[in-house]
Amino acid sequence: MTAAGLPSTLGAQSKPCVLVVERAVSEERRKWVGTLPGVSHVVTTSDSCRLTSRCYRSESSTVTLERGRIAIGGNEFVVAAGPCAVESEELLGATADAVVQRGAVLLRGGAFKPRTSPYSFQGLGESGLDMLDRTRHRTGMPTVTEVLEPSQVDRVARSSDMLQIGARNMQNFPLLKAVGRSGRPVLLKRGISATVEEWLSAAEYILSEGNFQVVLCERGIRTYENSTRFTLDLSAVPVVKSLSHLPVIVDPSHSSGRVDLVKPLALAAAAVGADGLIIDVHVDSREALCDANQALAPEQFASLMGSLDRILTAVNRPLARLSSTSKPKN
Amino acid sequence: MTAAGLPSTLGAQSKPCVLVVERAVSEERRKWVGTLPGVSHVVTTSDSCRLTSRCYRSESSTVTLERGRIAIGGNEFVVAAGPCAVESEELLGATADAVVQRGAVLLRGGAFKPRTSPYSFQGLGESGLDMLDRTRHRTGMPTVTEVLEPSQVDRVARSSDMLQIGARNMQNFPLLKAVGRSGRPVLLKRGISATVEEWLSAAEYILSEGNFQVVLCERGIRTYENSTRFTLDLSAVPVVKSLSHLPVIVDPSHSSGRVDLVKPLALAAAAVGADGLIIDVHVDSREALCDANQALAPEQFASLMGSLDRILTAVNRPLARLSSTSKPKN
Amino acid sequence: MTAAGLPSTLGAQSKPCVLVVERAVSEERRKWVGTLPGVSHVVTTSDSCRLTSRCYRSESSTVTLERGRIAIGGNEFVVAAGPCAVESEELLGATADAVVQRGAVLLRGGAFKPRTSPYSFQGLGESGLDMLDRTRHRTGMPTVTEVLEPSQVDRVARSSDMLQIGARNMQNFPLLKAVGRSGRPVLLKRGISATVEEWLSAAEYILSEGNFQVVLCERGIRTYENSTRFTLDLSAVPVVKSLSHLPVIVDPSHSSGRVDLVKPLALAAAAVGADGLIIDVHVDSREALCDANQALAPEQFASLMGSLDRILTAVNRPLARLSSTSKPKN
Amino acid sequence: MTAAGLPSTLGAQSKPCVLVVERAVSEERRKWVGTLPGVSHVVTTSDSCRLTSRCYRSESSTVTLERGRIAIGGNEFVVAAGPCAVESEELLGATADAVVQRGAVLLRGGAFKPRTSPYSFQGLGESGLDMLDRTRHRTGMPTVTEVLEPSQVDRVARSSDMLQIGARNMQNFPLLKAVGRSGRPVLLKRGISATVEEWLSAAEYILSEGNFQVVLCERGIRTYENSTRFTLDLSAVPVVKSLSHLPVIVDPSHSSGRVDLVKPLALAAAAVGADGLIIDVHVDSREALCDANQALAPEQFASLMGSLDRILTAVNRPLARLSSTSKPKN
Repeated sequence: MTAAGLPSTLGAQSKPCVLVVERAVSEERRKWVGTLPGVSHVVTTSDSCRLTSRCYRSESSTVTLERGRIAIGGNEFVVAAGPCAVESEELLGATADAVVQRGAVLLRGGAFKPRTSPYSFQGLGESGLDMLDRTRHRTGMPTVTEVLEPSQVDRVARSSDMLQIGARNMQNFPLLKAVGRSGRPVLLKRGISATVEEWLSAAEYILSEGNFQVVLCERGIRTYENSTRFTLDLSAVPVVKSLSHLPVIVDPSHSSGRVDLVKPLALAAAAVGADGLIIDVHVDSREALCDANQALAPEQFASLMGSLDRILTAVNRPLARLSSTSKPKN
Repeated sequence: MTAAGLPSTLGAQSKPCVLVVERAVSEERRKWVGTLPGVSHVVTTSDSCRLTSRCYRSESSTVTLERGRIAIGGNEFVVAAGPCAVESEELLGATADAVVQRGAVLLRGGAFKPRTSPYSFQGLGESGLDMLDRTRHRTGMPTVTEVLEPSQVDRVARSSDMLQIGARNMQNFPLLKAVGRSGRPVLLKRGISATVEEWLSAAEYILSEGNFQVVLCERGIRTYENSTRFTLDLSAVPVVKSLSHLPVIVDPSHSSGRVDLVKPLALAAAAVGADGLIIDVHVDSREALCDANQALAPEQFASLMGSLDRILTAVNRPLARLSSTSKPKN
Repeated sequence: MTAAGLPSTLGAQSKPCVLVVERAVSEERRKWVGTLPGVSHVVTTSDSCRLTSRCYRSESSTVTLERGRIAIGGNEFVVAAGPCAVESEELLGATADAVVQRGAVLLRGGAFKPRTSPYSFQGLGESGLDMLDRTRHRTGMPTVTEVLEPSQVDRVARSSDMLQIGARNMQNFPLLKAVGRSGRPVLLKRGISATVEEWLSAAEYILSEGNFQVVLCERGIRTYENSTRFTLDLSAVPVVKSLSHLPVIVDPSHSSGRVDLVKPLALAAAAVGADGLIIDVHVDSREALCDANQALAPEQFASLMGSLDRILTAVNRPLARLSSTSKPKN
Repeated sequence: MTAAGLPSTLGAQSKPCVLVVERAVSEERRKWVGTLPGVSHVVTTSDSCRLTSRCYRSESSTVTLERGRIAIGGNEFVVAAGPCAVESEELLGATADAVVQRGAVLLRGGAFKPRTSPYSFQGLGESGLDMLDRTRHRTGMPTVTEVLEPSQVDRVARSSDMLQIGARNMQNFPLLKAVGRSGRPVLLKRGISATVEEWLSAAEYILSEGNFQVVLCERGIRTYENSTRFTLDLSAVPVVKSLSHLPVIVDPSHSSGRVDLVKPLALAAAAVGADGLIIDVHVDSREALCDANQALAPEQFASLMGSLDRILTAVNRPLARLSSTSKPKN
């Protein structure tokens, strides 16, 4: 693609599709694009039919993590769990063991933590990534961790199975393009004041780079209400499902900021049609260096999973399990 | 105050209790109040322990509608359904028959409709009340309908089992006091930009008049998001449950304004711990004079009830049924 | 009005205009209405051309208070000031004397105070009205005070020159109709989460009863920001001016809830094009029974008026003065 | 850290200060830091006294742009103007000439445009920077332009006098640190749903890197109101002024998205105490490639400046002028 917004991945590779924008690109130019090496189809998008939309792809997409052979967006319901931040390999490992035992299949944990204040704990950085990497190899659990800037993408992609774009970076377009180019599965959190439309447009940045491996994550929006940290917008789940083929999961921990609300909101997320959950769990939850008051203790997580199981039965969605025969790749 | 809702020690008297506020009333005056005829106890409330709070009453309250012997707030889950507005006795009756058959136990329908524009259909008024009255007698279903001003309270209370305070009137204090004095069960909708704290303070106006028969209704709050009419705040359900002993139900119809979202949000409400639902149903939903695009057709309502049943099983709450032997009172 | 929404004032009087709604009223019926006694014109409104809109009346309206011969909405800028609540005749009188001396022409003061909690000070009620009445006669200042329910309208109208509809009652439609029927000048505060369109629709309720004496008041909207009590939406002033012929004033006291912000916001309101201000002033501001931290002391009010005078010169709008020869009517 | 912005006692050294956070750093470690080469003072900050706060520096800061010798935050009021995006050197130059003639002293224009959709015009990139660079040399006007990612900072800093952090990047922490390290003056726009506290914490990221050359820019927050694109929060100006020593300017163009509101909001910003404005102006405003409906035509800008002049006289703040003897540096 030209500077006018074509995928930068369009090089020598086998990508079969070139994106063309209706109004920005002339008929003539569109034809010319179709003659470029490696281009098999030219798709014209419009405001009403983008790569993220159901009009472009009517069936629901699944995003697959090779490690553990997990598919997000299919019939199975996927639970990610782990500490807000990686604090030490021991704590991370203990939490991973605790959550995998109780049914989580994806390990979360931040090595780079975006914090409102420059004086708050900012994560362990690269050593945190190394801890994640060793833990995923030891346990066989795939991992998801946040990436904060384009220059980190390759480094983080080497140590984690899925790249998380945090709420604050939902419209960090150079970062979206970078994770798009990486080809890695991406977890795209909704910005705290993003409309559903803006959220899908942010995802479009990733897809337009040729990376369709995007999972959306509703994590609460900012409203006037102050009994919860954010207002979890569960309506957004069926709204997104009606507009887009992408999977959607829900984060009941960061949205509420309250341990006592995580379980009821997790059950509601399953009932409303989400494809999974991402939950803060900490083996020593009161001592967490980050967002301590929202992390579940392992036994609270176990209780949640028990109730969740009953809701999933009601909605005919089995809980995804780590395939025991899975061999970690990478 | 009536005896309703006061500690059981304040039994059979006709005016057993005077409410006194800690900071506004001197010790002296409080004693003097206790000597007034009919006053047996003086209860001092405080900011942190009001009549609506769990510190005042730790066990959950149930609100009972005599017709049909329905209790809201107990273990049974209560579904109210019916048209947004009463349009004719035929349509109301047909809808009532359709919803009761499919498991609704409470009939909703507005005779007085508060409308943003003075030129929109404002409801049938008193003749609408008469239609509600005849329909509840015929079907045995109790009814809930909105009351807009203090002077209407008695009239509406004669024709309906439960009085609804709409979102726009949540802080209409003279109206809250009037329904408080009426002693009738009240459905108090949350204001579109009310905090949970303000909502409970509004309920406190009703309870402080001696009427503890209050059910809260979450119906969406106003946010920047425009894919739904309001943002349903399901977190508010467990938040209210943690603070207050009052029952809470959820309105997935008005909050979303979209037929396609009513079912998933209804299921989520059941999963999150609500005590019931109130749902717009119309036998000829495309022709509804008011909020046509949010009313379910009877077959859509049936589908919702089927799925709801499975969720209720998962959370161990049976669906409330109209007791077949019930004899309409009034 | 008939059931179809015609002005109830349409009786034997000289009102020359009957409002007819495009879609609700047939051609035939419209003609018939034109033959009724006292009807000189039949005006058909539409969604895009209502009584509040500039398309209905292109020149800006002025609302006149007879006492003091004050016109709001003309070239002169009008300052209303006074205590949040009437607490005693002495305090009210002292505040009135303090503010009139410094350039206020309209006295504000609540006799009925809508309060979030039933246990907060609710105003002096009728005795507060009597104090307002005596004070306006003594000082010659017209008064504005809040009315909370339809049944109070006549009583309040006897004791005050202008009726205030508070933010919580902006969509209390029976109350809007009642103040509409009263014919008295009305100050209509914007609801804390009302759009400009809803605000104008609320005003339309008053105008559609034949009362065009409506002044709008921007007083802050509810947002996530918590450094101020509400977020003053000064953009709403020119937005309203572009849509409607009605005057708009601004309340910098209740919107911010902070004494230190009242002056800068008052100056900004004058610069943005408001027709006036309404400001909390209390002679003993720390002891105010209601919203103590937002009331200016008289010397702070004097400082504000000095700076305001310079801004008004810059925008070519003189400050309205009480006409010294005015004789209180009523 | 550079010397920029440190107490005057920390004069000529090249690395005079190390920042230490109260709770994260032990007494022992703090002392050790003080012994490092080049460290002359150790400053301990706390939650309540950060580098951005008035408790750290009580007098207001000024941020100086060498080209044109402009100081923002002093008594003079500074107007920045120019096109939303750089589209061609001709259009940029013509707009620069038009605005400087009418009193603007700082030229705005985006070379990198963050856009909600990947298919919208994204700016001219480096060639846009070159156009800005040549235009500032030709006209003597300093420039401000947006930077989107850390790796661009040096390149943008070579071509522009001031670096803008857009609203979407207010919490892009790696970017904040990078512009902090650059030492260049920074214009930090408020995030669309950032509290004032979060905004100041974002600025703290820049200051904590030793760069005190930060100007804040209020540009509207996201609310439910939809008659304007965002709700300009003018209260934030005096709120920031009370908390922080940093200058604050206002963007009435992007906040409202409406040409007709730019002038009244600009006047209100001057009256409320802002230190300047940043305004979209386009010589051919209807043809602007980006946000066409918010750019003023030169004659509209002239009218605004005329009215602004009168308001500035009223508040005793002269309009900053480009010093005619200024020689472009760089």
